[in-house]
Amino acid sequence: MEKTLKTAGEFALIEKIKKDFARLQTGQNVSVGIGDDCFCFKTGGQTLCVTKDMLIEDVHFKKEWISPQDLGKKAMEVNVSDIASMGNVKPEYVFIGLGAPADTPLKYVERFYEGIKSVCLKYSVLLSGGDTVKSDKIVISVTLIGKACGKIITRNGAKNGDLIGVTNTFGDAGAGVELLYKHGAKYKYLKEEKYLISKQNKPEARLLQARIISEFATSMTDASDGLFISVSLLAKGADLFCEKIPVSKELLKVAGGRQKSLEYALFGSEDYELVFTVPQKRAAKLKKLLPEISYIGCVNSSKKVRYFYDGKEQKTVYRGYKHF
Amino acid sequence: MEKTLKTAGEFALIEKIKKDFARLQTGQNVSVGIGDDCFCFKTGGQTLCVTKDMLIEDVHFKKEWISPQDLGKKAMEVNVSDIASMGNVKPEYVFIGLGAPADTPLKYVERFYEGIKSVCLKYSVLLSGGDTVKSDKIVISVTLIGKACGKIITRNGAKNGDLIGVTNTFGDAGAGVELLYKHGAKYKYLKEEKYLISKQNKPEARLLQARIISEFATSMTDASDGLFISVSLLAKGADLFCEKIPVSKELLKVAGGRQKSLEYALFGSEDYELVFTVPQKRAAKLKKLLPEISYIGCVNSSKKVRYFYDGKEQKTVYRGYKHF
Repeated sequence: MEKTLKTAGEFALIEKIKKDFARLQTGQNVSVGIGDDCFCFKTGGQTLCVTKDMLIEDVHFKKEWISPQDLGKKAMEVNVSDIASMGNVKPEYVFIGLGAPADTPLKYVERFYEGIKSVCLKYSVLLSGGDTVKSDKIVISVTLIGKACGKIITRNGAKNGDLIGVTNTFGDAGAGVELLYKHGAKYKYLKEEKYLISKQNKPEARLLQARIISEFATSMTDASDGLFISVSLLAKGADLFCEKIPVSKELLKVAGGRQKSLEYALFGSEDYELVFTVPQKRAAKLKKLLPEISYIGCVNSSKKVRYFYDGKEQKTVYRGYKHF
Repeated sequence: MEKTLKTAGEFALIEKIKKDFARLQTGQNVSVGIGDDCFCFKTGGQTLCVTKDMLIEDVHFKKEWISPQDLGKKAMEVNVSDIASMGNVKPEYVFIGLGAPADTPLKYVERFYEGIKSVCLKYSVLLSGGDTVKSDKIVISVTLIGKACGKIITRNGAKNGDLIGVTNTFGDAGAGVELLYKHGAKYKYLKEEKYLISKQNKPEARLLQARIISEFATSMTDASDGLFISVSLLAKGADLFCEKIPVSKELLKVAGGRQKSLEYALFGSEDYELVFTVPQKRAAKLKKLLPEISYIGCVNSSKKVRYFYDGKEQKTVYRGYKHF
């Protein structure tokens, strides 16, 4: 059978491309190459970080689920989140590619750009260009360039014994999108369900926290494909203690208990919280500066990411979001 | 009737967005703001130029018309062409966003990236990142960052009396895509027709020429939407002399004469040749360095772009490619 994107898997594809291009990756100005949350390069003594993300209608969102303003905001925030993942970086210039059907109301596009604009103002980012083209479905491609203001934190710096930290709670966005798939947007949702849906539709990048964490962390990424995958990106081996994974009271209620909530936290997507590693001796100081963080496990020399609940190892069932 | 992208037109939309964001465009580091071929900003004493273009299946190309290698090459070349439009700029880092259906053969994607890679090698550009997502149709979003090595030439610098220059011939790509629409890819084409189709599928950025022209030009752009629109972008008023517009012998044969060929040259899209203005007294020296350029008209104080054939003004019929 011929291999397709679906059967080969996206990660296999990216690995192949990275390998093919590896010998081209020799630029002495490259600080962080392909495969991290951002690509970083030095120019005239300044390090710049670049990220690029696409959002596709009916793959990443449905038009009925999210207002055009929130869609614009989300497209921005998820890219700012990639910038935040690199540590102390200020987002500066954004380029928006928008594909839309010819019969899209102009109002829709204007509102989308209102959303973009409000996040530009929030972070003092300059809309710097882009492209508007016809397309069957809405396609959003954002490129964001940031300026390193301090330490760059990559995915590759975790040491055995480091603690694994996270910002805020996990699993809300994944549970939120599941509700939307199940009942659509017009359903009469409970207050707690609405909260989960708003976490799906209105993510917020942790730019400020990233700046502080960057002074302590040995590695960092943002959780776009679930906590389990994020930890796997930072450490070959790690133990996670599920009791310590922070989940919201809304998720606990909607999911019906801690066990099910943890599934969303570990394998749900689009939380856009930061996941990072910190040397044990520095962990308390960071927690004092940012009380909203939690330490949920530690890096070790085992070759896999294990997770424990009530002291018992749980079986890893891969349920992360697959792009293909 | 509610305004849609189609009824409002893409240019109206871009104008609106530019106006809305104008007050945000105050960054002192911005050299060239939104609305040129690239956005340019200074960082650490270095000026960088950024362009972003999208290619959408069944809008910009059909899968049957172009091989995946050529598609990858074209996606690169049209962005390099935007970089070339800014003068003496070296393309450095490229980010590829690719949306593709889940059943796309892995081979197709690999060949697409082979095309990308060959152009990266040609211009010493580093593939620096990107995103691969599922989508109904193939969607390609390229972001290319270049480093200014000399003078930046914008669209806004033409003076009355300047000559209007162009590289190579015009109209081939527009005639080529018309053939593909008419007969499809499997038709038995004449040699000359194949040439026109290859000009559609295999554009080449004029990076080297741009570097030389930048030492002479007062303004420059590349012709992606026809010569007429390109000239309109550089000058409010200009006279074009159609006899001087260079067209290939292949186009003359296929179009059946000069008059019809000129229609393709003026209003056909995707030539990706450079269009620029030069002070009269410097024009001869540039022509000596680059014999392949032609001077086709001059900038004047009239408020419109007129074009003459055999001394008689021709009526402007807007036939440029509309994105919506």
